[in-house]
Amino acid sequence: MFESETYVRVRYAETDRMGYVYYGNYSEYYEVGRVEALRQLGMSYREMEDSGIMLPVLSFSIKYYKPAYYDDLLRVKTIIAELPKTRIKFIYQIYNANNVLLNEGETTLVFVKIQTGKPCMAPEAFLQKLNPFFK
Amino acid sequence: MFESETYVRVRYAETDRMGYVYYGNYSEYYEVGRVEALRQLGMSYREMEDSGIMLPVLSFSIKYYKPAYYDDLLRVKTIIAELPKTRIKFIYQIYNANNVLLNEGETTLVFVKIQTGKPCMAPEAFLQKLNPFFK
Amino acid sequence: MFESETYVRVRYAETDRMGYVYYGNYSEYYEVGRVEALRQLGMSYREMEDSGIMLPVLSFSIKYYKPAYYDDLLRVKTIIAELPKTRIKFIYQIYNANNVLLNEGETTLVFVKIQTGKPCMAPEAFLQKLNPFFK
Amino acid sequence: MFESETYVRVRYAETDRMGYVYYGNYSEYYEVGRVEALRQLGMSYREMEDSGIMLPVLSFSIKYYKPAYYDDLLRVKTIIAELPKTRIKFIYQIYNANNVLLNEGETTLVFVKIQTGKPCMAPEAFLQKLNPFFK
Repeated sequence: MFESETYVRVRYAETDRMGYVYYGNYSEYYEVGRVEALRQLGMSYREMEDSGIMLPVLSFSIKYYKPAYYDDLLRVKTIIAELPKTRIKFIYQIYNANNVLLNEGETTLVFVKIQTGKPCMAPEAFLQKLNPFFK
Repeated sequence: MFESETYVRVRYAETDRMGYVYYGNYSEYYEVGRVEALRQLGMSYREMEDSGIMLPVLSFSIKYYKPAYYDDLLRVKTIIAELPKTRIKFIYQIYNANNVLLNEGETTLVFVKIQTGKPCMAPEAFLQKLNPFFK
Repeated sequence: MFESETYVRVRYAETDRMGYVYYGNYSEYYEVGRVEALRQLGMSYREMEDSGIMLPVLSFSIKYYKPAYYDDLLRVKTIIAELPKTRIKFIYQIYNANNVLLNEGETTLVFVKIQTGKPCMAPEAFLQKLNPFFK
Repeated sequence: MFESETYVRVRYAETDRMGYVYYGNYSEYYEVGRVEALRQLGMSYREMEDSGIMLPVLSFSIKYYKPAYYDDLLRVKTIIAELPKTRIKFIYQIYNANNVLLNEGETTLVFVKIQTGKPCMAPEAFLQKLNPFFK
């Protein structure tokens, strides 16, 4: 299992007239979570795309327990619980500064060759970075 | 069961560098779907909030089958399959102009008294509008 | 001079904790304004891009007089005041349902050949559609 | 004159199908710039709002020289060039990692008492923090 953490500060733009972070904006925080998880592994999602493989999202689900507010500094915990094959699942938890779990969710993404549009196996270089965490 | 349809045109802002609608933006299209569903029932979500009841989202899930592209005119189908109590579930399906199902999902929201922050029953006026569809 | 009008309904996602439409979101409403202006002229911006010409924005300015609120149905007025050459200027005004001018602004965009990345003249077909409005 | 710098990493959500950061999203980066400028001064915009004063935007303008791309780490430079009275002007410049100026702009905001909705002078505590930079 591979775990990673990163921080996101809530922007004014991301709040709504309830004063909460709009429910749809956590999709961006989760994106930040998984991209930084890859970076902490020594991978760059941008380079993966530049090398011809993209990762569109197949499914996304989220449960909201407590709202996040303007200017909150949120901790985004991202977990890869299984070695990916053609698909990769990320699990997310977002905590506020008082360490309260605000929401949790998951996304499943698929490795796709940009040129053909067809699913493919996770890149070998990526699996080599992940392997040590799954022994 | 109550069903409603509305249309959303994809904005440039909503696409990403894959050329697809960003996976998180469907949360906004689903919001448009449920607000227009209420309006077609003769309800205004804005008036509900102004009268002291808000509807924060408790959970959201979505499965992506095909991408939507820039300038696509999307049909958002919104379904209320059960009479709400303190919670209300909306089911969504988004179709493109060729009638292809692009994604489907659901959200559960809770009726909350703004003044107290406590959950409450769905407003009586709302239930009266919905009742004829559940006989 | 060519004038066009279209309507945009304010989404919950677009409000902020002041209860106003976030100041940056008018850029999207202006985008809707100019794309619908082209469509009313018989042009499709999407087709222009597919044919190899894109229109990145060079400058954008906006003055805010009054806020827009959640669920407001806004009228976006878009004006092309001069025949374009390699650049095109759009002028925008947004009115609420009481016909109050909420904000006005302008954007200058440049015609660019996607393949070369170089500026180019406005497409002939586009100029032919515009010509009758400048006599 | 007071100058401040902060960094923003471009999210996938913020790109568009040109592969550039969508022109409207710089409004959020500029927001991050001015909020972090205040924080570096020892002020919290959130606390200012909680104390009853908000800062709606009166005008915004931006010139785009070069695009920003996905995953770019952008440097946002924010300048307060004059002591505020009832209005405050922020000037912004965004640079990429190669120190290329991508865009520059400015916003004028007005201090407003939330309770009355009327403009007011900049809070005394804020002016005291700024004063040393204008001698």
